[in-house]
Amino acid sequence: LKVFSLNSNPTLAEDIADHIGTTLGNCTVKSFSDGEIQIKIEESVRGYDVYVIQSTSSPVNQHMMELLIMIDALKRASAKSINIVMPYYGYARQDRKARGREPITSKLVADLLETAGADRVITLDLHAPQIQGFFDVPIDHLQGVPILANYFEEKNFNDIIVVSPDHGGVSRARKMADYLKAPIGIIDKRRPRPNVSEVMNIIGNIEGKTAILVDDIIDTAGTITLAANALIENGATDVYACCTHPVLSGPAMERINDSKIKELVVTNSIPLSEEKKSDKVTELSVAPLIGEAI
Amino acid sequence: LKVFSLNSNPTLAEDIADHIGTTLGNCTVKSFSDGEIQIKIEESVRGYDVYVIQSTSSPVNQHMMELLIMIDALKRASAKSINIVMPYYGYARQDRKARGREPITSKLVADLLETAGADRVITLDLHAPQIQGFFDVPIDHLQGVPILANYFEEKNFNDIIVVSPDHGGVSRARKMADYLKAPIGIIDKRRPRPNVSEVMNIIGNIEGKTAILVDDIIDTAGTITLAANALIENGATDVYACCTHPVLSGPAMERINDSKIKELVVTNSIPLSEEKKSDKVTELSVAPLIGEAI
Ligand SMILES: Nc1ncnc2c1ncn2[C@@H]1O[C@H](COP(=O)(O)O)[C@@H](O)[C@H]1O
Ligand SMILES: Nc1ncnc2c1ncn2[C@@H]1O[C@H](COP(=O)(O)O)[C@@H](O)[C@H]1O
Repeated sequence: LKVFSLNSNPTLAEDIADHIGTTLGNCTVKSFSDGEIQIKIEESVRGYDVYVIQSTSSPVNQHMMELLIMIDALKRASAKSINIVMPYYGYARQDRKARGREPITSKLVADLLETAGADRVITLDLHAPQIQGFFDVPIDHLQGVPILANYFEEKNFNDIIVVSPDHGGVSRARKMADYLKAPIGIIDKRRPRPNVSEVMNIIGNIEGKTAILVDDIIDTAGTITLAANALIENGATDVYACCTHPVLSGPAMERINDSKIKELVVTNSIPLSEEKKSDKVTELSVAPLIGEAI
Repeated sequence: LKVFSLNSNPTLAEDIADHIGTTLGNCTVKSFSDGEIQIKIEESVRGYDVYVIQSTSSPVNQHMMELLIMIDALKRASAKSINIVMPYYGYARQDRKARGREPITSKLVADLLETAGADRVITLDLHAPQIQGFFDVPIDHLQGVPILANYFEEKNFNDIIVVSPDHGGVSRARKMADYLKAPIGIIDKRRPRPNVSEVMNIIGNIEGKTAILVDDIIDTAGTITLAANALIENGATDVYACCTHPVLSGPAMERINDSKIKELVVTNSIPLSEEKKSDKVTELSVAPLIGEAI
C-alpha cells in the first residue's frame, strides 16, 4: 500500500499516513511556466494498492485536474489499484438539473474520475447521498457527524438542542441529536407573500437552551449566521455551529465573526487557510476516520 | 446550427459566428463564490448541431473544466451533436512518457472530452499530429502555416530563408518554405561535451537573407530568441518569427522585446492579453479558416 498527497490537504495526508503506520510516497506536483500541471511520481508503484489524498476544494478546477492527471500517471505506472480519498467532493451541489439546460457537474466529476482510472473512492458527507449512485466503482461514504458530536459531548452542556438551519438538513440534525441524546429544532425560513422579507420561524423549544446548528457545508455563511442570530433573539442561551466542510468563501469569515455564533466547529476535509483561522473556529481531524477506512 | 463561446476566445468566437452568418448563442458562464463554475444555457439547443469555441489556454484548468461542464449541459439539453472548436489544444506537449511514471495528459484530455460527450473536435496545429489518434471521435486538424505564409508573401521580401528553430520543426518549416518558394535552414543546437555551453550551429546559407523562424508554439520564447540572435550574428539581414500558438508565458515578452526579432507574427488561437500586445507582435485571425471547417 502506498499513500500519495496532492496539493489540497498536505497536512491531513501526513496525518492519515501516520495513522496507518506509513509515510507519504514521493511525487512532484508543480506547474510549468504556462500553468499546465506537471506531475512526476518519484518511486515505483507497480503492483501496489495506491491511495491518493485530494479534496476538490478551492481552487477546485486546479485540484480536479491535478487529481485526474495523477490518476493517469498511476495507471500508466501499473499501480494495482487506484483509490481516491476525497474528503471534500467539489461540485457536489450541482447534483441535479434545478432548471432546464443546467449541467449535472457532480455526475460529470464521477465520470471523469472513472475515465481517468479511479478504482474506488472514499469520501465524506456528500451534499446528497445520491451522488454515490453516480459512480460505477465502489464508493465509501464516511460520516462527519460522530466526530462533531463527540466534540460537543465532551463539553457536557446540560440543556442542548440540535438545530437544522433548513429543511434539507433535518436528517443530519436527527443523527447528531441521537448521539447527543438531545431534541431537534428546525429553522423554517418562509416568505409569507412575494416581496415581503423572509421570516425565520423556529420549530422546537429553544428557550434557555444551548443550540447547536449543524450543516454539511458552510460556504458564504449567510444561512447559518442568520439562523444563529434568530436563535439568540428567540431565547437560546448560546449558539454553537458545526459543519463537516468549511468552504467559507467570500464574506463567510466576516459574517461568522460578526454573528452570535460562539464557536464554529469544522473538520479538516478542507484545510483552513491563514485568513480563515479565528478564535471562533475549531478544527477537528478526520485522519483517524479515514485511516480506518483505508 | 448554433455556436457558443466560453471564456477563452470571445472575440474570435464572434468573428467565427460572423463568418458563417450567425450570431453567438446565449449562455452564462460564471463562477460561484467558492470558485465552482456555473453554466446556464439560455436558449434551446434541442435537436441542433452545436459548436463550442474554447481554447484550453491559460488558465488551462479553468478553461478545461468550463468546456467539460458546457459539454455536459449541452448533452443533457438534447443537442443533436456537440462539436468542439479548440483552436489551441492545451496539454499537447505532454503527449508521451518521456520518463517513467509521467502522465500522458493529452490522451487524458481526449478521453475527458469524449466522456463528457464531445462528438467531434476541430483543432489547429497540434504539437504532435499523433494526438489525432488519441480520439475515437472525428477530429479535424487545421493548419496555421498557410495563414502565416500568406502574410509574409504579401511583404514581397526578395531573398528569404525559412528557418526551423530545432529539429522537431523541420517539416513545418518545409511546408512554409513551399508556400514561399524559399529554401530552408535549421538551427542545430548542440552541446559539444557535457558542461560546455550549447553551440548554435546553423545549417543552410543565411548570409544576406531575410530569415523567417517558424514554430507551432512559442511559450517562454527562450529557443526562438536565441535562434534569432544567432541568425543575425551569422549574417542574416533581418529576422522575423512566427507561430500558430502564442502561449507567451513567464519571461516571453521581455525576451522578445529584447531580441533581434524584427516582428513576431502569431494567430489568435490564444488571444493576446493587454500586457502581451507590443509593436513587435502582429496577430492574424483564424476565424475564416475555422468558419470554413464548420
Ligand atoms: N458552488 C456553489 N455555490 C453556490 N450554489 C451552488 C454551487 N453549486 C451549485 N449551487 C446551486 O445550489 C443549488 C443546490 O443546493 P441545495 O439546494 O442546497 O442542494 C443548485 O440550485 C445549484 O445551482
Ligand atoms: N506546459 C509545458 N511547458 C513546458 N514543457 C512542457 C509542458 N508540457 C510538457 N512539457 C515537456 O515538454 C516535453 C515535450 O516537448 P517536445 O519535446 O517539444 O515535444 C516533455 O518532456 C514534457 O514533459
